Amino acid sequence: MSEKAVILLSGGIDSATTAAVAISRGFELSALMFQYGQKHGIEIQSATRLARFFGIGYYVVIEIPSGIFSSALTDEHRAVPKNRGINDHEIPDTYVPARNILFLSYALAFAESIGASRIFIGATAVDYSGYPDCRPEFFQAFQEMANRGTKAGVSGDNIIIETPLINMSKAEIIRTGIDLGVDYSLTHSCYDPDADGAACGLCDSCRIRKMGFQEAGTPDPTRYRI
Amino acid sequence: MSEKAVILLSGGIDSATTAAVAISRGFELSALMFQYGQKHGIEIQSATRLARFFGIGYYVVIEIPSGIFSSALTDEHRAVPKNRGINDHEIPDTYVPARNILFLSYALAFAESIGASRIFIGATAVDYSGYPDCRPEFFQAFQEMANRGTKAGVSGDNIIIETPLINMSKAEIIRTGIDLGVDYSLTHSCYDPDADGAACGLCDSCRIRKMGFQEAGTPDPTRYRI
Repeated sequence: MSEKAVILLSGGIDSATTAAVAISRGFELSALMFQYGQKHGIEIQSATRLARFFGIGYYVVIEIPSGIFSSALTDEHRAVPKNRGINDHEIPDTYVPARNILFLSYALAFAESIGASRIFIGATAVDYSGYPDCRPEFFQAFQEMANRGTKAGVSGDNIIIETPLINMSKAEIIRTGIDLGVDYSLTHSCYDPDADGAACGLCDSCRIRKMGFQEAGTPDPTRYRI
Repeated sequence: MSEKAVILLSGGIDSATTAAVAISRGFELSALMFQYGQKHGIEIQSATRLARFFGIGYYVVIEIPSGIFSSALTDEHRAVPKNRGINDHEIPDTYVPARNILFLSYALAFAESIGASRIFIGATAVDYSGYPDCRPEFFQAFQEMANRGTKAGVSGDNIIIETPLINMSKAEIIRTGIDLGVDYSLTHSCYDPDADGAACGLCDSCRIRKMGFQEAGTPDPTRYRI
């Protein structure tokens, strides 16, 4: 019987590629998706399509009240930054406080409850927006905390946090996914889409995505409004 | 202006006492409460009464789908253990996977969003059920993880996890609360209450509570059905 793992599916390129990597390594995946008042709540549709694409039978959509977050990604009165210098050393306005901490905590509870031995998360610290909760030192600290704070950890049966993309550029991620047969037309990246889902082309997430497809030498299947 | 802090209010003795301690130290509290399918969901009523008692104006009840947890505390088909040897070195069936990790992660997101500098949690590692996520080494690891995974932490402005009761016995906690004017008749402890809220008197939580009041030499205001 295959080993169970939990995957955090956002509907973007990174989590889709991570799912493909986990499946290629033989894991049986269960997925968590999060609705937290993000302006790109449409990503849940992509996440659901991806779950079907990958044959993930068990997935749960978790609702987090957006009122607990202060972020340009959730607050109607704050604009999503466009054409920002992505390599600025500043943490951008789209930072959502403790988001990956919360998502991984849910994954940990779920993994321990269903007897999964791993948690896969598609974080990358190369072509990214500079969020503190995407860096290797954060994941190491989360792992240590999980080992001490769960029954699994205390019993010496740690649930392992897997970040297979952490050191990959966006282009490498896309090439890896294409090799594994990922259909990127199912994914969504834009932080600020139209009501009908067209991508803005100017937010960090769109720009990193475009650059990745360019560098990978592969057409980007996204419908951009610009 | 007073410094802001977030408190996790469960409705029990420990979180009530912790709120009193935080207020006595001058913090302006905002509270989080959790509905996670616990059999003692009635504790939310106690938490709400306590919030009013302490004059906490801003509190949020977070709903967590019980389906992600496997625990005797949430599963209708598993009984809450009664008259268990409390000092057994075994983690009991009422352990809820990653519960404090999840609660603290919510508190961290909320604290960072509202500009609170502290998080108060009423964990104790003395008279307790042996949960791994109530031990000092867990809180140290959580603190380290929070420092690395949040904008506040990376900016050198760590949000501090405060566990003022961690080394107190239940009797000491009760004496502390009484000195600070806590009305324990508002609290609820039982894991397995009647529909009308009467406590079972036999679960770990009831037994630790009874023992605490006895040792503190103070009458327990709880209505027990046994």
